[in-house]
Amino acid sequence: SRKKQNSVAAFVSGILQGNITLLSKAITLIESTNPKHQQKANEILELCLPHANNSIRIGITGVPGVGKSTFIETFGKHLTGKGKKVAVLAVDPSSSINLGSILGDKTRMEELVTDENAFIRPSPSGTSLGGVAQKTRESIILCEAAGFDTIIIETVGVGQSETVVHSMVDFFLLLKLSGAGDELQGIKRGIIEMADAIVINKADGENIQNAKIAKVAFNRALHLYPLKESKWQPKVLTASALHNSGIQKIDALILDYIALTKENLHFNRKRNEQNKFWLLATIDQQLKDNFYNKIKIKKALQEEIDNLETGKTTPFKAAKKLLEM
Amino acid sequence: SRKKQNSVAAFVSGILQGNITLLSKAITLIESTNPKHQQKANEILELCLPHANNSIRIGITGVPGVGKSTFIETFGKHLTGKGKKVAVLAVDPSSSINLGSILGDKTRMEELVTDENAFIRPSPSGTSLGGVAQKTRESIILCEAAGFDTIIIETVGVGQSETVVHSMVDFFLLLKLSGAGDELQGIKRGIIEMADAIVINKADGENIQNAKIAKVAFNRALHLYPLKESKWQPKVLTASALHNSGIQKIDALILDYIALTKENLHFNRKRNEQNKFWLLATIDQQLKDNFYNKIKIKKALQEEIDNLETGKTTPFKAAKKLLEM
Repeated sequence: SRKKQNSVAAFVSGILQGNITLLSKAITLIESTNPKHQQKANEILELCLPHANNSIRIGITGVPGVGKSTFIETFGKHLTGKGKKVAVLAVDPSSSINLGSILGDKTRMEELVTDENAFIRPSPSGTSLGGVAQKTRESIILCEAAGFDTIIIETVGVGQSETVVHSMVDFFLLLKLSGAGDELQGIKRGIIEMADAIVINKADGENIQNAKIAKVAFNRALHLYPLKESKWQPKVLTASALHNSGIQKIDALILDYIALTKENLHFNRKRNEQNKFWLLATIDQQLKDNFYNKIKIKKALQEEIDNLETGKTTPFKAAKKLLEM
Repeated sequence: SRKKQNSVAAFVSGILQGNITLLSKAITLIESTNPKHQQKANEILELCLPHANNSIRIGITGVPGVGKSTFIETFGKHLTGKGKKVAVLAVDPSSSINLGSILGDKTRMEELVTDENAFIRPSPSGTSLGGVAQKTRESIILCEAAGFDTIIIETVGVGQSETVVHSMVDFFLLLKLSGAGDELQGIKRGIIEMADAIVINKADGENIQNAKIAKVAFNRALHLYPLKESKWQPKVLTASALHNSGIQKIDALILDYIALTKENLHFNRKRNEQNKFWLLATIDQQLKDNFYNKIKIKKALQEEIDNLETGKTTPFKAAKKLLEM
């Protein structure tokens, strides 16, 4: 027997009432590769849009082992304890090659998962980071329409995913560890430049002293960069998510940032720039999808790749041939 | 009076005879945005292709101030002194925003410029790094057809340009300085991972001791990475391009690399992979050009950007509208 399908109107009215089941199902439509699902998702998105945008979007990154899950659990519980509604989404490039999502193992956020004011969703899978990111960005809209006022976007600290997450959030938080090993992984100039705050996690027990030393070093590093367009001077804080210390200060810091940037209009300017970026990214992605999804192109592309390997053609010649098909 | 135009056949036969004037003019056709010039450039490329590919392609990167121009001049003169023919090209993202090319000021390579076995060409300009890179890649083909057996591709050590250059060369050389300041800029994990050799330049006078210390540190850093697919263990060398010391060792190192990778077939495998990458990159670039160069899209895109700013549309809605035009 055919499963009863919810109408677009049922989805929208459910989402606007904060119905988590329908929110979740609508995100599944966004993530689907079925054109009918995509069409329905677009209609839902369009009707939810006027109710979106009223949130603080926070990006959180850090290398594996830095304690992202524990941090998000503790920070998320702190926020829901204040009456906030928190959605946690992820942009995980590894999920596209089936290495499993960061948030796939939800048991790592046991308390937040069962919190009725929290919504946790693993990373969508996809063939490209751009595709994954677009789906996440659309999911943000639905979460906001469902009344979530704080959106946390998690990503692992590898590759290009931080840049993509940075381009969809208001505030970007970099989690670090003190002590050996992490320094080498950590001094990626580009990521430090993107950070609005660096939080040195696991600052507890014997680590407290090391965390203080790391705080001084990172503060010095941050002061080498020119003041950002936001006029915000990025800060370094220490915390122990496991022992629930330092969390309140991080929350206060983010609120300071939001107050400053709403006051000096950077907040809206940044969202405008992000919208332009996403307009162009959406077009680029769609142009590629339209081309590579053609059945005759799929077949011919493989032939041309074979010809390249045997030296029978060149990249330019093969590209020209495919584009003229 | 109308300038006399060389025929495609005249270009090709001139290039194959090593005629620098015609090589230079053909590269100008590659770089032109005029569709007629592009058509002619494509015909020249196609006829030159069977005569290309017989070179060693070396990428050289390093932050401004590291002494790239002096290094390339000294290294280039060393090679031409051995009877090699050296072409120096550049991929300079800054040239696309009119900040001027690295090689724009040719006076910085006074001796190499007047060497009849050297050919120096500044970075093409363009609206995107991808576009600039494609033109450089096509220029490599023409230089090889003209008999240049060593192609040096220079890029500044900022942004994404190293990745692009890495994807078009056989050997990737990172220039560094010893001493304070450069460490912070230098420890970009991604770039160090790409390097087949790190050369600590300006190792002369009072710097010699610092250069030795830096050599030990970088050697240690390099050994933290797993052995590359090429089976090549990246090496650290010191040199002073200004005083012409350490250059012979660098040349020998590159020849060792080429011998090893030709023997274990990595050399050809890498060029195959690069060809596949460039096939897809060429298609993507062309899809975008075809779309954004339409006059009606140019006009409508600006309207949609204005609508985005005033909140009258969203990135998805605007993209859909433009794509359906």
